[in-house]
Amino acid sequence: MPRYPEPVTDPLPENPTHWTLTLVCDDQPGIVHAVSGAVVAAEGNITESQQFSSADTNTFFMRLQVMAPVDRQTFQQALAPVVERYGMRVQLDVVGRPMRTLVLVSKAGHCLNDLLYRQRGGQLPIDVPLVLANHPDLAELASFYSVPFEHRPVTDAESKGAMERRILEAVDEHDIELVVLARYMQILSPELCAALAGRAVNIHHSFLPGFKGANPYRQAHARGVKLIGATAHFVTSDLDEGPIIEQNVVRVDHTKEPAELVSIGQDEESRTLTQAVRWIAEDRVLLDGARTIIFK
Amino acid sequence: MPRYPEPVTDPLPENPTHWTLTLVCDDQPGIVHAVSGAVVAAEGNITESQQFSSADTNTFFMRLQVMAPVDRQTFQQALAPVVERYGMRVQLDVVGRPMRTLVLVSKAGHCLNDLLYRQRGGQLPIDVPLVLANHPDLAELASFYSVPFEHRPVTDAESKGAMERRILEAVDEHDIELVVLARYMQILSPELCAALAGRAVNIHHSFLPGFKGANPYRQAHARGVKLIGATAHFVTSDLDEGPIIEQNVVRVDHTKEPAELVSIGQDEESRTLTQAVRWIAEDRVLLDGARTIIFK
Amino acid sequence: MPRYPEPVTDPLPENPTHWTLTLVCDDQPGIVHAVSGAVVAAEGNITESQQFSSADTNTFFMRLQVMAPVDRQTFQQALAPVVERYGMRVQLDVVGRPMRTLVLVSKAGHCLNDLLYRQRGGQLPIDVPLVLANHPDLAELASFYSVPFEHRPVTDAESKGAMERRILEAVDEHDIELVVLARYMQILSPELCAALAGRAVNIHHSFLPGFKGANPYRQAHARGVKLIGATAHFVTSDLDEGPIIEQNVVRVDHTKEPAELVSIGQDEESRTLTQAVRWIAEDRVLLDGARTIIFK
Amino acid sequence: MPRYPEPVTDPLPENPTHWTLTLVCDDQPGIVHAVSGAVVAAEGNITESQQFSSADTNTFFMRLQVMAPVDRQTFQQALAPVVERYGMRVQLDVVGRPMRTLVLVSKAGHCLNDLLYRQRGGQLPIDVPLVLANHPDLAELASFYSVPFEHRPVTDAESKGAMERRILEAVDEHDIELVVLARYMQILSPELCAALAGRAVNIHHSFLPGFKGANPYRQAHARGVKLIGATAHFVTSDLDEGPIIEQNVVRVDHTKEPAELVSIGQDEESRTLTQAVRWIAEDRVLLDGARTIIFK
Repeated sequence: MPRYPEPVTDPLPENPTHWTLTLVCDDQPGIVHAVSGAVVAAEGNITESQQFSSADTNTFFMRLQVMAPVDRQTFQQALAPVVERYGMRVQLDVVGRPMRTLVLVSKAGHCLNDLLYRQRGGQLPIDVPLVLANHPDLAELASFYSVPFEHRPVTDAESKGAMERRILEAVDEHDIELVVLARYMQILSPELCAALAGRAVNIHHSFLPGFKGANPYRQAHARGVKLIGATAHFVTSDLDEGPIIEQNVVRVDHTKEPAELVSIGQDEESRTLTQAVRWIAEDRVLLDGARTIIFK
Repeated sequence: MPRYPEPVTDPLPENPTHWTLTLVCDDQPGIVHAVSGAVVAAEGNITESQQFSSADTNTFFMRLQVMAPVDRQTFQQALAPVVERYGMRVQLDVVGRPMRTLVLVSKAGHCLNDLLYRQRGGQLPIDVPLVLANHPDLAELASFYSVPFEHRPVTDAESKGAMERRILEAVDEHDIELVVLARYMQILSPELCAALAGRAVNIHHSFLPGFKGANPYRQAHARGVKLIGATAHFVTSDLDEGPIIEQNVVRVDHTKEPAELVSIGQDEESRTLTQAVRWIAEDRVLLDGARTIIFK
Repeated sequence: MPRYPEPVTDPLPENPTHWTLTLVCDDQPGIVHAVSGAVVAAEGNITESQQFSSADTNTFFMRLQVMAPVDRQTFQQALAPVVERYGMRVQLDVVGRPMRTLVLVSKAGHCLNDLLYRQRGGQLPIDVPLVLANHPDLAELASFYSVPFEHRPVTDAESKGAMERRILEAVDEHDIELVVLARYMQILSPELCAALAGRAVNIHHSFLPGFKGANPYRQAHARGVKLIGATAHFVTSDLDEGPIIEQNVVRVDHTKEPAELVSIGQDEESRTLTQAVRWIAEDRVLLDGARTIIFK
Repeated sequence: MPRYPEPVTDPLPENPTHWTLTLVCDDQPGIVHAVSGAVVAAEGNITESQQFSSADTNTFFMRLQVMAPVDRQTFQQALAPVVERYGMRVQLDVVGRPMRTLVLVSKAGHCLNDLLYRQRGGQLPIDVPLVLANHPDLAELASFYSVPFEHRPVTDAESKGAMERRILEAVDEHDIELVVLARYMQILSPELCAALAGRAVNIHHSFLPGFKGANPYRQAHARGVKLIGATAHFVTSDLDEGPIIEQNVVRVDHTKEPAELVSIGQDEESRTLTQAVRWIAEDRVLLDGARTIIFK
């Protein structure tokens, strides 16, 4: 099971020059010198660099952007000795290449709308070859953005199993790198969670303090909370407990009815999920055990 | 048991003219007309007015600021028929009169420092006749601000009982209107909570998601939370679960060690507690069941 | 010339019960009592009330929401004596009635998109019978939301005059209450500004410090500003200097290129303009000389 | 004239191990490899690294934190060939070493109080050997924090010249690295600005839009601004126009009187100035022409 998205074979533009390179390995002296040496060997110039040493797991994380007038194979060959020596997991990508993204939805369209609007406006480097839904409500929205939409009702164990098989099939069929649960109101099976580990992101509402059980907005209203928000996180089998990618809150007061809290919360969900997807698509999110390292 | 601070007999300045009037009663038509009629009868002019009707409890809440060239007794007489007719709980106060406040502390001084610094700077209308502490550490800080400081160790059931009796005694002795637990690291007995209901405010850290158990900052670090914050709330016998008055959060990232999270969290605790105390001291906080109405 | 939008004859639903009432007059004692008496006479119950006394202009402002089982004429008759006595300007509206809004655009669609998306989602009580544009670029966007779109090139003094006449004609034709300049990149003539006074809102970018002249985003980049934002304001003949309705900023840093600052600034423009339009449509914005009173 | 603070001879602890290294040079390939090679030669491990290439000035900026079991001379010798080859300006410092800071004040104490409170609490790595003031008001505050305070009235050209000579003398006498104008209400002469270039930081209020001339808070009130804030910047001879280090804003509304705006603005000034000083003291601020690069 990969701890972060695996490298993919991307359709290279003719003249790639701007690369993203992320790498993870055990922490020890000399890594930066060795990696920057490989960049020099590939005739590259480092334009952006971020690193972090996790004291908890003794792991070294790095993200570079490199201008290099070479093809992928040449760059990989230049990196190979360093990768071998330090036992690195690396990912090499072309800056701005859209990440192939499968979106799962139910009835609520606020997250899907924001993703597709930002994608079309050039602010979100993703390709969405398919939207999979367990309800038909968002077909028109997908159509406006010319994104294929597939509706599969989930009403019992059998149709739920069929949907999950369809998700995995679509991941294969479209070389999907990221699965986004954009208010997909179905609990994934542990098997599907495991199969998508590190490649699936979920969004849910968040409150101070947290509320368990049904209708959390009603509970939040009853307790008179002053902040409501949203959390985007990786999917794990422990529902709503995966590594956190991004969180936002907004201030509310006693005049807000539960329905207004829902509306305000949806805005936070949209922008929080879109931000998380943007960072993942730009290779800015790495996993350190149960925590994320975000190289903004 | 009062659900919000009772009116007190305040030492009136010679020529009081600016009043705060808060009132709570069952909701029904005609209240505003009746109250504003009483204000006219007291030759008053309404300079600020806020109201809220709670659909949940069918309760009407109002806060007025009134310029009136009368003394307290005259104003109260003008209000009396309305108070009687609607079964109102009312509180009449002079704008800017400092609220008599008892502060309870342990070792950490960030909240006490902020309260006393703001008080001295004229930004926080409280009088602090006494700081009660179960540790001696903050004696010097209190001394700098010329506030009496009393240290009573709490080490067992007997000394804990003695401290709680001292708290109640100090409340009586100094006509205390508000008790502030400024990082007072002792759990109050249910009896003391009941005795101080609606008159005691507590501060604690808050996270998205919430963490139960010891060392929450370490847990927050382990989960890689992106927001940490603080909640100020009224004290009830259900620890950390009383009506919320104010909440704040601040953004953190993966580079913050647990000790830094603690420091950041303390800043949020200070400003959140001070804000809550300011609103209470200005008669801006009313209770609607488990929720607070805040007339900012 | 009205200082704020005049009452309009609205198509009443059969059984209007929830009203918005705003009123402005010289400040003096007894107003609240008189107005609340008129509400009682109309069998109404005040569900929301906000007021402000401007010391600068000695003006009293009030906004009420009232549940009243009467028709418009009955309510107006109940109010008439008070209106007369205090020389009030009043506006009586049904809560939630969409405000008839004309939108002016050029090429950039971010503000128009946000307005129409929020309107369709039920979060923005406006009706948009027409979008007028001096460029054809946004025809498709308007079409997606089924809003009539009219393109009139503005290339010289004559076509500019024709456009301005068309704007005024459209205001009459569609009973327009609010004109929104949603990045309409034309300077309005003083005559048009005067004709639309208090009824037209504009959005522009804002920086700390401000920058005069062309290409402000490039100047902001050159100075390394850390905050960029947007201001929504009423249109006056003094360009970009009308009464401010809403402002927002967002944090940026040295890594942002001018093009990115533009994109970030556009997000602020969208949400700031939409917020200003929402408050106007809900009768929450009143004018106090060069300042706005916002009853949120 | 240095464009950023020059290296100083610091009193080394016995066993220095954690270093801050900042470097600036013309941008070209291979720098990171060369610098990391020098770190390896000094037996160092890079624990934090940030870099930025300015396209505007073709300049490369880097800040490293390095654990290295060597003394300053050894580290400098390891770096020397790289510094020479790339024509670098470098600064090598021990992490956490307090920056020697001279504070200039007039009457208002909010900024001085925040600086000294944070310094004493261990949150701000500065040493303040002297506070210089043109008014006596803040003597007691300095005394509480045991900081020497010197009062020199500035009433005419002669006393102003004497104060400026005293400032330069104090800079020499105390090996001052940073001069903080903490609401020092005197305009510095061009000669003094030049002498302190890159080593002096100022704070002033900021508004959207900006206001020229006297009493800006009154102007801001008259225009009904919704955001007020503060900007910390390096001092240049063009008053209030030096490179910006940090900016903050806070939301206000129509109910705030000018005096309240002043109080709110002072809070923003305090926290903005303290943040700017913290970043400078941690060697996180580098100059790129008229812009700052902040490695947070």
